[in-house]
Amino acid sequence: MSASDPARAPQAAGLREHTLDSEIVFRGTFLNVSRDLVRLPNGAQVTREYIRHSGAVMVVPLLDNGNVLMERQFRTPMQRVMVEFPAGKLDAGESWLACAQRELREETGYQAKQWAYIGPINNAISYSDETIHLAFARGLVPGPQQLDANELLDVFEASPLDVLDWVRNGQITDVKTVIGAFWLDKLLQNAWSVDWHDV
Amino acid sequence: MSASDPARAPQAAGLREHTLDSEIVFRGTFLNVSRDLVRLPNGAQVTREYIRHSGAVMVVPLLDNGNVLMERQFRTPMQRVMVEFPAGKLDAGESWLACAQRELREETGYQAKQWAYIGPINNAISYSDETIHLAFARGLVPGPQQLDANELLDVFEASPLDVLDWVRNGQITDVKTVIGAFWLDKLLQNAWSVDWHDV
Repeated sequence: MSASDPARAPQAAGLREHTLDSEIVFRGTFLNVSRDLVRLPNGAQVTREYIRHSGAVMVVPLLDNGNVLMERQFRTPMQRVMVEFPAGKLDAGESWLACAQRELREETGYQAKQWAYIGPINNAISYSDETIHLAFARGLVPGPQQLDANELLDVFEASPLDVLDWVRNGQITDVKTVIGAFWLDKLLQNAWSVDWHDV
Repeated sequence: MSASDPARAPQAAGLREHTLDSEIVFRGTFLNVSRDLVRLPNGAQVTREYIRHSGAVMVVPLLDNGNVLMERQFRTPMQRVMVEFPAGKLDAGESWLACAQRELREETGYQAKQWAYIGPINNAISYSDETIHLAFARGLVPGPQQLDANELLDVFEASPLDVLDWVRNGQITDVKTVIGAFWLDKLLQNAWSVDWHDV
């Protein structure tokens, strides 16, 4: 039996805020910032600022040889090359699966015969409404990469043991990739299972 | 022997961007947005926008009875109550340990006799420079909460098994808390170790 949902406990009810007003205070080339005026349960009115994000998908691609596909990519905010599983932003109205298939094909060239949804994660809950959907892919068939002209990344294979080692050592710090690595560990240990679907 | 750092492989060298210009394009009450002009390795010039963040710390507090301390908190961007380990933003010049001690005491009232640093994670590498430092605390001694007037949260105890169950079920989706739960699992399985320090 599972433990009951801790976010739906009676104690949670008294924490809810009430939104009084919401406006977009910054429209950038990539980022939009909302500022909300909210009323707290104690009656106080405060402002909250946060990024409006369309959401994203990340794929843990399992090769038939037991390795996974990963990417190196320079990330401007971090000013260094990061190691990540393939991922990308959801287009408007796009399903997680369509996005995952598109990003995997564009970034790595691979197409997958089977997919399993892992779940959603929220990566910056105090200042972004982003949800990242995580999934496994297997039955991978190689094909040509279809990167945008200015999308520069290096795809490589890694063993699950190395990936977990890099997480433990702090050589992988990207949260979606860290969580994908832990899920991969649980899957390969047969400790947790996922539902596979043919596409 | 550990696998070598995948971000320092020869293939990573060719991915580096060169910053040509950087300006703050939005100064909010809580959020500041930078816009950089960068030159890619292929010679193209593109703009990047991202949040400037002071960094944060999260603590996994291990009680003597085997449970961990958690919090329920309403998060405006998500419009729901989230379940999290205690966390907070670094003040300017503050060490991870000073911040962790302060946030644990303010939010839960507890003080810890021993601390172990887990490592850094980066939660939004495409649009924020935030680093969150993760740590374990044990030898916990209760005391009075010291919340700000408008900081509303509910502290509760949970068993590590329930926490991991909530991660698997998607009832915990906050990335720092998910990663803390997986590290807790590794620690309690004696699969991974950390260095404890008295304070």
